[in-house]
Amino acid sequence: MNSPRIFEVVARYCEAYNNLIPVAFVLGFYVAIVVERWNLQFNNVPWPDRLALFVTASVKGADDRGRLMRRTIMRYVCLSYVITMASISPPVKKRFPTFTHMTEAGFLLAGEERILIGIKTPHNKYFIPLVWATSVVARARKEGRIRDDFAVKTIIDEINTFRGMLGTLFSYDMISIPLVYTQVVTLAVYMFFLSCLMGRQFLKQGKVGDVYVPVFTILQFFFYMGWLKVAETLMNAFGEDDDDFDINQMIDRNLQVSYLIVDEMHADHPQLIKDQYWD
Amino acid sequence: MNSPRIFEVVARYCEAYNNLIPVAFVLGFYVAIVVERWNLQFNNVPWPDRLALFVTASVKGADDRGRLMRRTIMRYVCLSYVITMASISPPVKKRFPTFTHMTEAGFLLAGEERILIGIKTPHNKYFIPLVWATSVVARARKEGRIRDDFAVKTIIDEINTFRGMLGTLFSYDMISIPLVYTQVVTLAVYMFFLSCLMGRQFLKQGKVGDVYVPVFTILQFFFYMGWLKVAETLMNAFGEDDDDFDINQMIDRNLQVSYLIVDEMHADHPQLIKDQYWD
Amino acid sequence: MNSPRIFEVVARYCEAYNNLIPVAFVLGFYVAIVVERWNLQFNNVPWPDRLALFVTASVKGADDRGRLMRRTIMRYVCLSYVITMASISPPVKKRFPTFTHMTEAGFLLAGEERILIGIKTPHNKYFIPLVWATSVVARARKEGRIRDDFAVKTIIDEINTFRGMLGTLFSYDMISIPLVYTQVVTLAVYMFFLSCLMGRQFLKQGKVGDVYVPVFTILQFFFYMGWLKVAETLMNAFGEDDDDFDINQMIDRNLQVSYLIVDEMHADHPQLIKDQYWD
Amino acid sequence: MNSPRIFEVVARYCEAYNNLIPVAFVLGFYVAIVVERWNLQFNNVPWPDRLALFVTASVKGADDRGRLMRRTIMRYVCLSYVITMASISPPVKKRFPTFTHMTEAGFLLAGEERILIGIKTPHNKYFIPLVWATSVVARARKEGRIRDDFAVKTIIDEINTFRGMLGTLFSYDMISIPLVYTQVVTLAVYMFFLSCLMGRQFLKQGKVGDVYVPVFTILQFFFYMGWLKVAETLMNAFGEDDDDFDINQMIDRNLQVSYLIVDEMHADHPQLIKDQYWD
Amino acid sequence: MNSPRIFEVVARYCEAYNNLIPVAFVLGFYVAIVVERWNLQFNNVPWPDRLALFVTASVKGADDRGRLMRRTIMRYVCLSYVITMASISPPVKKRFPTFTHMTEAGFLLAGEERILIGIKTPHNKYFIPLVWATSVVARARKEGRIRDDFAVKTIIDEINTFRGMLGTLFSYDMISIPLVYTQVVTLAVYMFFLSCLMGRQFLKQGKVGDVYVPVFTILQFFFYMGWLKVAETLMNAFGEDDDDFDINQMIDRNLQVSYLIVDEMHADHPQLIKDQYWD
Repeated sequence: MNSPRIFEVVARYCEAYNNLIPVAFVLGFYVAIVVERWNLQFNNVPWPDRLALFVTASVKGADDRGRLMRRTIMRYVCLSYVITMASISPPVKKRFPTFTHMTEAGFLLAGEERILIGIKTPHNKYFIPLVWATSVVARARKEGRIRDDFAVKTIIDEINTFRGMLGTLFSYDMISIPLVYTQVVTLAVYMFFLSCLMGRQFLKQGKVGDVYVPVFTILQFFFYMGWLKVAETLMNAFGEDDDDFDINQMIDRNLQVSYLIVDEMHADHPQLIKDQYWD
Repeated sequence: MNSPRIFEVVARYCEAYNNLIPVAFVLGFYVAIVVERWNLQFNNVPWPDRLALFVTASVKGADDRGRLMRRTIMRYVCLSYVITMASISPPVKKRFPTFTHMTEAGFLLAGEERILIGIKTPHNKYFIPLVWATSVVARARKEGRIRDDFAVKTIIDEINTFRGMLGTLFSYDMISIPLVYTQVVTLAVYMFFLSCLMGRQFLKQGKVGDVYVPVFTILQFFFYMGWLKVAETLMNAFGEDDDDFDINQMIDRNLQVSYLIVDEMHADHPQLIKDQYWD
Repeated sequence: MNSPRIFEVVARYCEAYNNLIPVAFVLGFYVAIVVERWNLQFNNVPWPDRLALFVTASVKGADDRGRLMRRTIMRYVCLSYVITMASISPPVKKRFPTFTHMTEAGFLLAGEERILIGIKTPHNKYFIPLVWATSVVARARKEGRIRDDFAVKTIIDEINTFRGMLGTLFSYDMISIPLVYTQVVTLAVYMFFLSCLMGRQFLKQGKVGDVYVPVFTILQFFFYMGWLKVAETLMNAFGEDDDDFDINQMIDRNLQVSYLIVDEMHADHPQLIKDQYWD
Repeated sequence: MNSPRIFEVVARYCEAYNNLIPVAFVLGFYVAIVVERWNLQFNNVPWPDRLALFVTASVKGADDRGRLMRRTIMRYVCLSYVITMASISPPVKKRFPTFTHMTEAGFLLAGEERILIGIKTPHNKYFIPLVWATSVVARARKEGRIRDDFAVKTIIDEINTFRGMLGTLFSYDMISIPLVYTQVVTLAVYMFFLSCLMGRQFLKQGKVGDVYVPVFTILQFFFYMGWLKVAETLMNAFGEDDDDFDINQMIDRNLQVSYLIVDEMHADHPQLIKDQYWD
Repeated sequence: MNSPRIFEVVARYCEAYNNLIPVAFVLGFYVAIVVERWNLQFNNVPWPDRLALFVTASVKGADDRGRLMRRTIMRYVCLSYVITMASISPPVKKRFPTFTHMTEAGFLLAGEERILIGIKTPHNKYFIPLVWATSVVARARKEGRIRDDFAVKTIIDEINTFRGMLGTLFSYDMISIPLVYTQVVTLAVYMFFLSCLMGRQFLKQGKVGDVYVPVFTILQFFFYMGWLKVAETLMNAFGEDDDDFDINQMIDRNLQVSYLIVDEMHADHPQLIKDQYWD
């Protein structure tokens, strides 16, 4: 058997590989699982608006101390959001590599930064500003700015829900879809194209279908690679792809809207006037 | 090789493409994901009825001020619904392109419109009427029209749930299924038909199955295009297709039913009479 | 080409169709979506038992007025159930075509029927009896039959949950799975059998597998049609098929059990006696 | 055509059947739906522990009456569990065919059994002990053993959640996956093997692959039958298979743990001593 | 027929097996079910942070007794976590084979260990520390360290939620995916490779594609075995694989963070200072 003949046998052998592993099937199932995970992450990104409405309704006082308390509670909650995101989202990490950057951006004050750094724990500190927020709420109750224990419970409940969602995002970051699954899928796709490369050569004894430019093989390549790319994009929901959540923008929005609700618009509403359907 | 022969080779080559990409499979998985997203949107369209029942049960007073407060709270909630929908649903956008159109439709008063426009924020303003509604509730409590803090908490809770659902709809609008997935699927379907067009020509050396009108290819075309159309329809749940939610109709229904519950039917029920099974 | 030969060509052409559209695959995905929708409907059929337990625990008084209030609240809730079901379930519609039939069945009194008809609204009136129920609860609170606002909130919460579930059933009825999907699937199945009919003829030049009675084609027909029938049955969860919910029976059960809980068994329990494991 | 030849044709015809119906595909989808239903049932099996903790925290008094009340509430709840299970789980039905057997097992007292039998209703009586439990709670409140209405609401809430889960189990038992689906799937699998039996005969004109013992056909048989068996096992989650929930054991566990929590361990905890990390 | 010929027939027969059972399809469905189960387990791993925030906000007192109560409640909750995990996770079992090991690690005190061992019950004792925690909360209320019953209810609610999640983990451990399903899938995969081993021999009458090293069969082996391994890893979510939850690390984190929140940081927050956006 001369070497062109060997080459041809290898080529035909490789082509047969396409039928051995159902690449489309594997990708379909894998992407379905990844999409579900992405959905769960999406639904666990918390919004401070809900808490802000409760804070503005419960913590009374248009004086400086009242404003300070409301603003501080919301700032702590937004800070906790920033700390969490800085550890799971590369673009946020890039923007806030250290606590000092958060201080510069106004999420943290210099004194708070020192305290935060001073707390010795090997674990992520995202929950600490929320504990502070809880303490501020307790102080507001003691000073009579929150009228009843019921409102205290409502606000702490909200803070807790916020913490729970951040904690869930954190868990999803730590414990991803078993690595072996990703490896198995990626391996299957790459081997598939390796075998295509070998198997769809232009052979001397031309088969029907041999053309000079393998248009459809190229399309097939784009198709499967695109599908695998979908999975990779969705695996890192907080990355820098176009399809990812723009967390940095949300961070700014959260602080602005929080301040707007609990401070600027506090206890204020347009004059009550009869509407046009009033009979 | 003369050109008819080349044509024939290309045709046969194209026909082989059908087996390279499993169009049905890809569409099946894609549509399953899109349907799930649609379901989540469907379940996040809020209804003001729930809030209306709480408002009518908690905010007392059949006098003008009581009526005004109840009506205003509900109007603000409906307004928030309109603002959100105007930014995510094309037909609502068409009906309410500016705040002025909402004023004309009675969702907004002239003074409120000025305040709303005056608030400087780069973010969507859908949450502002809900902050106003919260403030009206707080005022009603201060004036003694709501008897206890517990009812205040209940109403604010409902307002918050309403806001949460609008926020979720908003998020779904911003962050859709990764574009690359849609592109990959659409490309696959279109390439499939291009290859059909080439591959199922009437060749000189007739194969079994050559007919003058490609009935089944046409049917296949309708079938796959129909399936892709299902996905496109579901991606834009609030569009103008027949299958989409008729949000404009819901907007009118919401305001009418809200006023009916909190105003016309307030504190009113038929006389208590023994039913026919009273033994 | 003579006409037997044309016939044969068409037959073979039709048989090839089987491979063009993956009927099993399409049906599998479609049925999965329909089953999920059915599950959501199933989980949104409300039960009045929960509300009945709260009403019997909160609304005091074994005198006629107390009994009347408890019974009326439950009757209104059951009525709201009947009105909703009469608009989404054909067998219930058949039983209760007008409010008069509900009056005859004891769900509505003559006076209430007049009021209900008198309310002018183009929308479904299922929520109106629930507004009445809320007003009766408010009156019971004013008369001191409900001891605290907390219990009021609990009952109204339950009424609201009940309304929410009815509203969801209502929405599912209005907005079904996009019609185009159903059309696409049905078309695929029917075309499939049309092509079978043509393609599996007994040809002159017998192929292996030609038999006089096409046993397996008949079986295949039953199989795919059965599968499509599953989807159709599940699409109309409240219809008259054997597999559908028997809503008419549930309607009777709901009223009887409600009266049993809030009236006959009110504030009554067997004597407290030590059980056999009391050491 | 002589009869061996006919036999051969029929055999080959049958073998072709394998490709007509995609048995694996149908089974895959069917099992996925059945597994989801099983999961929902699994998550709706209630546990009395949660209620027991609330009862022991809220119903005060270490005297006989206090103990009696706490034990009775828990016994009624466990009884309701037993009545429900006896109507949906064959092994529990076998153990408790009548109320008398429940009396013997200590879930019911003789007097209570008479009352239970005396209540005339065509519907399942599982909710009646829960109404009794509610009444005992109301009495405990009246006697001052429960300090506030809030605790009453909490306990009744729990009883209601318990009832809701039992009701859901009950519904799942009444309304199963549409029978026609099960029939369609079972028919497909059985026809498949009938055709295998005929189609994989040892023919005179031996094909490649004819062997004396059809090893792989046997394996295939075990495989598909095993898969169908999985579905059947999961359809009856409360049956007597090894994989089913062992409800009888849970019944005993529930009563023992309930008594342990509300009686033996009531208001008791180890002495408060500083732990080893106390600095 | 000579024996090389028989060997060849068997080989070809085995190769045909690949088409009899759709291994990829079966694995795809099986893994999808296993992944869903894993997700549910993941979402039911409880975190004590939420409870800790409520405890620090509700149980007052910076003196030793207050600190002791808060620490003890949290320690009991963490202990309950350890007991549960020790019975479902092999690595935790290895670290804490007996209660004595928990005492050494500081989760349990010597006196408590004796009491725990003294309680006679055939069932898992994970809920007992939670009953103790409830009793400590009740005592704190009686001593006036918790101001109102509402806070008591909130904390007990949280303890109950914690218990519920541990109970769910426990149930998932007891009742796994029906064994027969796992057996069916494993059998299918192993038979598949046995048939490959036989079927892809290097035959005398070489087919196209015969090569000395079966590269693609080896790849296929790795691929399917990898996929089956994914399922096995996910079935035992709390095992010792790299992809499993590192429960031992979580156990330490939980105790440290709990003490940090309820003790070190109790009622403490940075000084309230105006932030940089204060206008």
